[in-house]
Amino acid sequence: MRSFIDVSPDSHFPIQNLPYGVFKRPEAEKPCCGVRIGDLVLDLRVIEHRGFFRGVFGDEHVLCKWSLNKFMSKGPAAWAMVRRIVTDLLRDDNPTLRDDTALRDEALAPISQVTMCLPAEIGDYTDFYSSREHATNVGIMLRGKDNALQPNWLWLPVGYHGRASSIVVSGTDVRRPCGQIRPDEKAPPIYGPCRTLDFELEMAFFVGTGNEPGRPIPIDRAEAHIFGMVLLNDWSARDVQKWEYVPLGPFLAKNFATTISPWIVPMQALAPFRCAPPPQDPPPLPYLAASADSPARSTFDIRLEVTLQGERMPEPHAICRSNFRYLYWTMAQQLAHHTSGGCNMRPGDLLASGTISGPTPDSYGSMLELAWRGERPLAFPNGESRTFLQDGDRLSIAGWCQGEGYRVGFGECSGRVLPAG
Amino acid sequence: MRSFIDVSPDSHFPIQNLPYGVFKRPEAEKPCCGVRIGDLVLDLRVIEHRGFFRGVFGDEHVLCKWSLNKFMSKGPAAWAMVRRIVTDLLRDDNPTLRDDTALRDEALAPISQVTMCLPAEIGDYTDFYSSREHATNVGIMLRGKDNALQPNWLWLPVGYHGRASSIVVSGTDVRRPCGQIRPDEKAPPIYGPCRTLDFELEMAFFVGTGNEPGRPIPIDRAEAHIFGMVLLNDWSARDVQKWEYVPLGPFLAKNFATTISPWIVPMQALAPFRCAPPPQDPPPLPYLAASADSPARSTFDIRLEVTLQGERMPEPHAICRSNFRYLYWTMAQQLAHHTSGGCNMRPGDLLASGTISGPTPDSYGSMLELAWRGERPLAFPNGESRTFLQDGDRLSIAGWCQGEGYRVGFGECSGRVLPAG
Repeated sequence: MRSFIDVSPDSHFPIQNLPYGVFKRPEAEKPCCGVRIGDLVLDLRVIEHRGFFRGVFGDEHVLCKWSLNKFMSKGPAAWAMVRRIVTDLLRDDNPTLRDDTALRDEALAPISQVTMCLPAEIGDYTDFYSSREHATNVGIMLRGKDNALQPNWLWLPVGYHGRASSIVVSGTDVRRPCGQIRPDEKAPPIYGPCRTLDFELEMAFFVGTGNEPGRPIPIDRAEAHIFGMVLLNDWSARDVQKWEYVPLGPFLAKNFATTISPWIVPMQALAPFRCAPPPQDPPPLPYLAASADSPARSTFDIRLEVTLQGERMPEPHAICRSNFRYLYWTMAQQLAHHTSGGCNMRPGDLLASGTISGPTPDSYGSMLELAWRGERPLAFPNGESRTFLQDGDRLSIAGWCQGEGYRVGFGECSGRVLPAG
Repeated sequence: MRSFIDVSPDSHFPIQNLPYGVFKRPEAEKPCCGVRIGDLVLDLRVIEHRGFFRGVFGDEHVLCKWSLNKFMSKGPAAWAMVRRIVTDLLRDDNPTLRDDTALRDEALAPISQVTMCLPAEIGDYTDFYSSREHATNVGIMLRGKDNALQPNWLWLPVGYHGRASSIVVSGTDVRRPCGQIRPDEKAPPIYGPCRTLDFELEMAFFVGTGNEPGRPIPIDRAEAHIFGMVLLNDWSARDVQKWEYVPLGPFLAKNFATTISPWIVPMQALAPFRCAPPPQDPPPLPYLAASADSPARSTFDIRLEVTLQGERMPEPHAICRSNFRYLYWTMAQQLAHHTSGGCNMRPGDLLASGTISGPTPDSYGSMLELAWRGERPLAFPNGESRTFLQDGDRLSIAGWCQGEGYRVGFGECSGRVLPAG
């Protein structure tokens, strides 16, 4: 399948992708929903006003909104119909948009001329801890090799509630937080700038349709509730975390900022890249066990790369290469577990994976692991080194699925560290 | 000060209180904001449409909304002006409303004829752990008397992010959650109904005006950001909590339901009941230390009572009497700490105190403590006993400040336990 819009083979945004986002044109009063193709954004407000979605939503306005929540709430049949309509409009053998210069001018905006916004109003944000390698690495640092994994880890996808208000879109600068830290364990704690600022390489999914309170989402229906995926950086103040997190978990160490990529890749675009997750032993309890044939295809082969560029570095340098498929717990298991006690999801809720570390040291998804809590500094070509993030560092996550001659990608999840205020 | 509306001396809602809530009349399409007085609700939509708030908000609609968020965002000067206008309208020496039968019929609804709703859209919900007695009791059960308090507890108000989507208003039934539990520590965990369902006696405050990301709220300005207070029951599945909470904190054990009382008591109504919190030793770090004279009046004397009524009990029985003033950390300290790393607050965010246990066993704020993890069952007059909550139990929290001849109260925060689904 091809589009009449030119897209290079290494672009993240060919016609096979068509992710959803919310963007603002400089002249517009409000942001609105769009679809990315190549270096252009298709303005869904224009498409909806022209009546192209009337067969799906009648006269209801769903996509000329400044968030995707309403569209998310419509469910997988509506998502598939809209995707089909948008795909058809962009195909090279369909003259409707291709040959209508006025409509093209109105509906297509160069990405360089728009500002990306958060794609949804996020009611609740949850962060899991689903990489066995990451949990093991952190466990070794805290408790030694023999007791690295907590007893519950292999039985349930451990997670916690995060802060929704401080989720920002890629490109937003992040200020180094101050906080209560205890650098000298024999002296009282002090309040000051974080000294061990870290990133965490994560991905996340947006809930589409939710569930009623007290009505869990069964594992075999969980994927139908997932609207799409983004990249996520769970910025972390390690020294704050160390002092505050017992017994109720991370709090200020995480809630100063969380960055997500702006384009939500729909699950339909990811379908060709399904693959098997790591084997699960012990076998999951029945409420976490997908039916017989699905486990072999219950995760996705998504290549991930993290780059760091310091202020005095001429270009970004890769510091980590990982893959979403390394995760032990699947998204369906996370969602089934999250609702298993009756917790209700709402359209636009965001569930993150936890740090995605792979089996080799160059696939670890945080500075804490890459530099092994400071013991193995990362060296850069200009002679600098890092154990944690420095002011001025730009940290970027990229992710894509590699098809034959095309990529379905997530673009970039990027942020620069500002000095403490 | 008196109102032309009859209010009995033991009512929670005299003219000195005037809390805000959101209610729905049976014939109305949507809920709207109101003020409680005695057994009546003053409909603020009617009052706003009649132009009484024009001097505060001009032509902007602020109170004819189905949530209080917009009003919350306006700040303490606007809150004070609206309170003054509503107080004046309800005074017995002001004929404006008193003698206008048509306006009274339109603007005043009997509480028995309306349905109460959540008062605000809660963007983020945080739960603290600010009772020294509660933290000590739980610590003794887990670690013994000598290590009861964690090393960080006296240095910072420990807290964690909770689930906003499952906050419900008083009167909503709560279904006993299922979850992963491990009743036999030598056998694998199982999935099934919670066996040790608990309540937690808490209070909470709503944030009025928020702060920008990266811009902490200083301790001395924190109170000006607080809109008002409610009662809160943090329903807890203790067996789920025990198995899941290490290392990232409580998750499914808490997120199935959290109940709040419907009326937000404004800080102005609580001002006469200011008092001193417990002494803090070690002295708090500067960012948590209020200026010299304020600590002596930085908390509030709010009497709290918890009652339980089983299905076969003819009436509710008091199982706990406590007081908000027992809390070690103040609301101003909680808010200053929460934002101290740059986390941004938004109007309508809810910050809860944590379980409010007092010094004596009859003032403990949870079944876990009252029945000391099952070792001292609570006996009831009809011969029943409880170690945790049973299906059909109605758990209610009441709270009030006792003035001379009047009460400023919070009404009730109540919910009945339904059997697991």
